[in-house]
Amino acid sequence: MNEINLSQVKAMTFDVFGTVVDWRRSIAREIQELGQKKGFDLDWNSFADEWRSGYAPSMNKVRNGEMPWTKIDNLHRMILDELLSKHKISILSEEEIDSLNKAWHRLDPWPDSVEGLTLLKRNYIISSLSNGNVALLVNMAKYGGLPWDVVLSAEFSKHYKPDPESYLSTGEYLGIPINQVMMVAAHKNDLKSAKSNGMMTGYVPRAKEHGENTVADYAEEDYIDIMADDFIDLSQKMSATKETNS
Amino acid sequence: MNEINLSQVKAMTFDVFGTVVDWRRSIAREIQELGQKKGFDLDWNSFADEWRSGYAPSMNKVRNGEMPWTKIDNLHRMILDELLSKHKISILSEEEIDSLNKAWHRLDPWPDSVEGLTLLKRNYIISSLSNGNVALLVNMAKYGGLPWDVVLSAEFSKHYKPDPESYLSTGEYLGIPINQVMMVAAHKNDLKSAKSNGMMTGYVPRAKEHGENTVADYAEEDYIDIMADDFIDLSQKMSATKETNS
Repeated sequence: MNEINLSQVKAMTFDVFGTVVDWRRSIAREIQELGQKKGFDLDWNSFADEWRSGYAPSMNKVRNGEMPWTKIDNLHRMILDELLSKHKISILSEEEIDSLNKAWHRLDPWPDSVEGLTLLKRNYIISSLSNGNVALLVNMAKYGGLPWDVVLSAEFSKHYKPDPESYLSTGEYLGIPINQVMMVAAHKNDLKSAKSNGMMTGYVPRAKEHGENTVADYAEEDYIDIMADDFIDLSQKMSATKETNS
Repeated sequence: MNEINLSQVKAMTFDVFGTVVDWRRSIAREIQELGQKKGFDLDWNSFADEWRSGYAPSMNKVRNGEMPWTKIDNLHRMILDELLSKHKISILSEEEIDSLNKAWHRLDPWPDSVEGLTLLKRNYIISSLSNGNVALLVNMAKYGGLPWDVVLSAEFSKHYKPDPESYLSTGEYLGIPINQVMMVAAHKNDLKSAKSNGMMTGYVPRAKEHGENTVADYAEEDYIDIMADDFIDLSQKMSATKETNS
């Protein structure tokens, strides 16, 4: 039954941070480069982790109405300002802080991402579906060569994942039934929400998202329709479902 | 002064129908193919013109609040239903009518469009800015190989051009000041509105938009910052402004 549904997929929407790009190493590198240039020292990886860990709580304030709609660029900046203050880094100019904040626009794709997306693009509409704002996603795509057919962002629906509107908007914008759209992510909670809103789901665990010591979760779940090692493997497995059912 | 501003352009947003694609010949061809298959005869070009001429009035009903937000796909279908009735064509199935309506997703690019956009993409963020809905623009890009960095549509801002919100949303989504965004169009009224909302403007007259006998308007206007013969010429002229000011 899952196999038959997989052959009907027309579009694939991808979570971005962690799924398509390696945010941790990219952010740690940028803060390290800045620190070495300006003369401050930190645990660069921990700084990246701290920055990222402020992300969900700040979005939740938007999701529950405590804050009005606020772009990720601005949420990142609020968290960054707190972190710089906490670590007593006061030597950065506004321009340097703004540039550091835009490090999130310059995240390196995982080694398989560009090739895998390019393969998938031959058979599917491929799109981001990220909480990142449009400018961030567009700049990141140009930086990393991500070949999106279309950039979809929570900024368009003004609803952050896992709000249902964010998932449901994909079918509406792409003009196809929601069960012909596959959400692809490295995070099970994203896929669980996507499935509960009627999407197909593809799970691509990223064993190094949180560093070399990440313990990746390879367990199957009833809300996961297909699991793959990386995007190239996903492309091959999806092609097989088309051939089986043609 | 214009030249200095042109060197600051970061993104180019393109009108699509008539500017990037040859809607008239593409639509006429599809209705002709269907007519020959199903056994009805019409002036195919006139049918395309009639269909297109219903476009602005139907959008205006949305713009002035007479109708709620309605996608172009649905406006096209309303106009098509009236035209089929007027021409007493009653032999088409729902599936055939829906497929004909989606002919607007399969419009051929002008001969220079893909090469010109590819050249411009090296130096600028390139985006659609069309009243066409997202699905229409995405399907058209895949059909014709249009290499957009991002698909922007009136569907995102829920405001049809020439509403100011449609133009102003480009700078907001792309995260850059509106005067660093250039609107490119084959239609002066689009550029006049873009300029009045603070955008830069590029005029690319399309001498065959309305058929071989179109009288194209090559007159300069104070709201036009740059004029070009086609997108390849536009790319060359824009490169020259960068070199002059670097």
